[in-house]
Amino acid sequence: MIIIKGGVTAPKGFLASGLKAGLKKSGRPDLGLIYSEVPAVAAAAFTSNRFQAAPVKISRLHIRNKTHQAIIVNSGNANCANGASGDRKAEEMARSASRELGLSPKEVLVASTGIIGVPLQVDKIKRKVPDLCLGLSKEGGKDFAQSIMTTDTVRKEISVKIKLGKAVVTIGGACKGVGMLHPSMNTQKHATMLAFITTDAAISKTVLESSLDEAVRDSFNMISVDGDMSTNDTCFILANGLAGNDKISKSGSAYKIFTGALKFLAVEMAKMLVRDGEGATKLIEIDVRGARTGHEASIIARTVSRSNLLKCAVFGADPNWGRVIAAMGSSGVDFNPDGVDVYLGNVKAVSGGGIAKNYDRNAARRVFKDKKVRITIDLNSGKGRAAAWTCDFSKKYVEINSEYST
Amino acid sequence: MIIIKGGVTAPKGFLASGLKAGLKKSGRPDLGLIYSEVPAVAAAAFTSNRFQAAPVKISRLHIRNKTHQAIIVNSGNANCANGASGDRKAEEMARSASRELGLSPKEVLVASTGIIGVPLQVDKIKRKVPDLCLGLSKEGGKDFAQSIMTTDTVRKEISVKIKLGKAVVTIGGACKGVGMLHPSMNTQKHATMLAFITTDAAISKTVLESSLDEAVRDSFNMISVDGDMSTNDTCFILANGLAGNDKISKSGSAYKIFTGALKFLAVEMAKMLVRDGEGATKLIEIDVRGARTGHEASIIARTVSRSNLLKCAVFGADPNWGRVIAAMGSSGVDFNPDGVDVYLGNVKAVSGGGIAKNYDRNAARRVFKDKKVRITIDLNSGKGRAAAWTCDFSKKYVEINSEYST
Repeated sequence: MIIIKGGVTAPKGFLASGLKAGLKKSGRPDLGLIYSEVPAVAAAAFTSNRFQAAPVKISRLHIRNKTHQAIIVNSGNANCANGASGDRKAEEMARSASRELGLSPKEVLVASTGIIGVPLQVDKIKRKVPDLCLGLSKEGGKDFAQSIMTTDTVRKEISVKIKLGKAVVTIGGACKGVGMLHPSMNTQKHATMLAFITTDAAISKTVLESSLDEAVRDSFNMISVDGDMSTNDTCFILANGLAGNDKISKSGSAYKIFTGALKFLAVEMAKMLVRDGEGATKLIEIDVRGARTGHEASIIARTVSRSNLLKCAVFGADPNWGRVIAAMGSSGVDFNPDGVDVYLGNVKAVSGGGIAKNYDRNAARRVFKDKKVRITIDLNSGKGRAAAWTCDFSKKYVEINSEYST
Repeated sequence: MIIIKGGVTAPKGFLASGLKAGLKKSGRPDLGLIYSEVPAVAAAAFTSNRFQAAPVKISRLHIRNKTHQAIIVNSGNANCANGASGDRKAEEMARSASRELGLSPKEVLVASTGIIGVPLQVDKIKRKVPDLCLGLSKEGGKDFAQSIMTTDTVRKEISVKIKLGKAVVTIGGACKGVGMLHPSMNTQKHATMLAFITTDAAISKTVLESSLDEAVRDSFNMISVDGDMSTNDTCFILANGLAGNDKISKSGSAYKIFTGALKFLAVEMAKMLVRDGEGATKLIEIDVRGARTGHEASIIARTVSRSNLLKCAVFGADPNWGRVIAAMGSSGVDFNPDGVDVYLGNVKAVSGGGIAKNYDRNAARRVFKDKKVRITIDLNSGKGRAAAWTCDFSKKYVEINSEYST
């Protein structure tokens, strides 16, 4: 696998565009489109929040269609809690794009991000859909990635190439979301981070769903900025088969290679989100190993990654490992505290549940001063492993989020 | 029931003291003692964290004794994650007080609060125990309440009087804890908030446990400052029978009156903690009603009270109710989103899952500017009710917690 330049338009047959529809007060781009030149199969993961934004409801219906060719996305408004008229507007977004592109509405997926509970000015969107479609191009991947940003400070794109047999398969992605970020998405059920992945792999819808499920579980579902789960979290993947590989089957080695690459891409995208987390100055990785099961490891990793106190300590470069073990212990997982080791970077801080001999606090402080802080927890009681990612918690986060809707 | 002046020494037969043992760098008081002149029955609720501080482990053993007469408490060090020597030191705290007071060690309960993973300087404590015991007095309640403070900015005491038959029963309390505050305590299992309650009621140990259980569930277990559960949370109650009431039985009306008063006291203490939450400028109350069950109401109330985004919005007086519904929806409780009403103070913001007609955003903003913000959620689907309390999230919180152990 190699990492290449580009995002959602890196795979064969995908075009994209992005422009300003006037939804954002700032006047920044707020409407984007991804288009596959040939019918593609799609899989999706949606938020498990009981409040589902209108575009999530509509996309959950549309995803049942056999093929898809477009995804239309607006930022600046979440179109959530807007009642039946919100649902209708989400449907109108899909319909206006489908009309312009000569597709059926169900072949178009929809996503929104922004404030909750403010009526969507769908007319502004509809007025711009023709330009949006005319603007589709290979270069448009960047414009798309720009158009989906809210409080994001950087555009987030990545793509990779793998070989499946003699064919070269490309997977590309763009994503956004740096606050209200604590996704829990499921392809079977339903995740405001938005992630869009495209690939020219030949793969069936069912196998694509399974591959996406595995990738989402270990990536987007393992990140947190603030512990707040959104009503709009969505991850879409489109696969259009233009790479000409033998169709990927669940049992073959190609599935492992493809899913491995997809997971890599998803983890990198997830880390981009957290690194750009609202007010973030550092990326924190929580590695849990030695748990009885992978599931228990992931619960502990996620609980620790959600600790406001730990996140403040990292912000202040204060190696207060007591906050790590306190968070672990609140996870609900039953483990032996006397078996726990904790490393801050490579510095062993906790051994057998208590402070490690020769613990070097100054070295630990240096670890906490880095831009990337890795905390490793070893439960010494099994082979279960998991990683979770978060960012530090700064005064800037509070600043951003005490003034968001004003 | 009437509220009277005083704290843990308000009930008959209780004395207290507090002094400086030199555990805190600041040189502030850090060692306290509560003493009942006659044998009392005790009940306790401890943290459900898998990492249990040494004083929690020791008190869990001691609480099995039939009677108790003293509680010794230090601040400035949590005595947690200090291995076997930590356990030994917690036991030594109890033993040195018991020796001085002519009790058996098991008649003494222990609590600690402060930093995790730093060896406790127990010699400093033992050296001061004689003075601590000599200093016991009715006036010492204040000194005790002072001695247990960590980042608390105010002393927290309250007491009430009730009539049971012809007897006047007094309940008094003192508490501390304004960060790492998201207790989950259970009298059956195990809750760094510390709360100490004394009463001169005549009541058996079993009935006292049951009464404490009810009170803790609706008070301390429903507050959160930062979502971080401590390794040291503890609530003790001592009842010495000196009020001369007929012994309270579980089935009688006296139980209801006593438990009602205890619950009132506990809720008031819980609110004191949150109001003084680290960096807090406002108290937030989340009232949930119309849930299918009380349990579901409490899960929703607690989930919303933990939303960092909502807490930031209240800090900024930004009535962003979308954050309320997003948090509700992430609680894991199954409810009908289209049946939900939300009130900010008395301003109806959400009706049937969407923005309320005539929603007055300016009035809502005024509500969010108050020192006390009440948010009411009505699920319109049953009789389940619950309340949770939290504080707003300010830059000051981050400041306090990025520099705690340095």
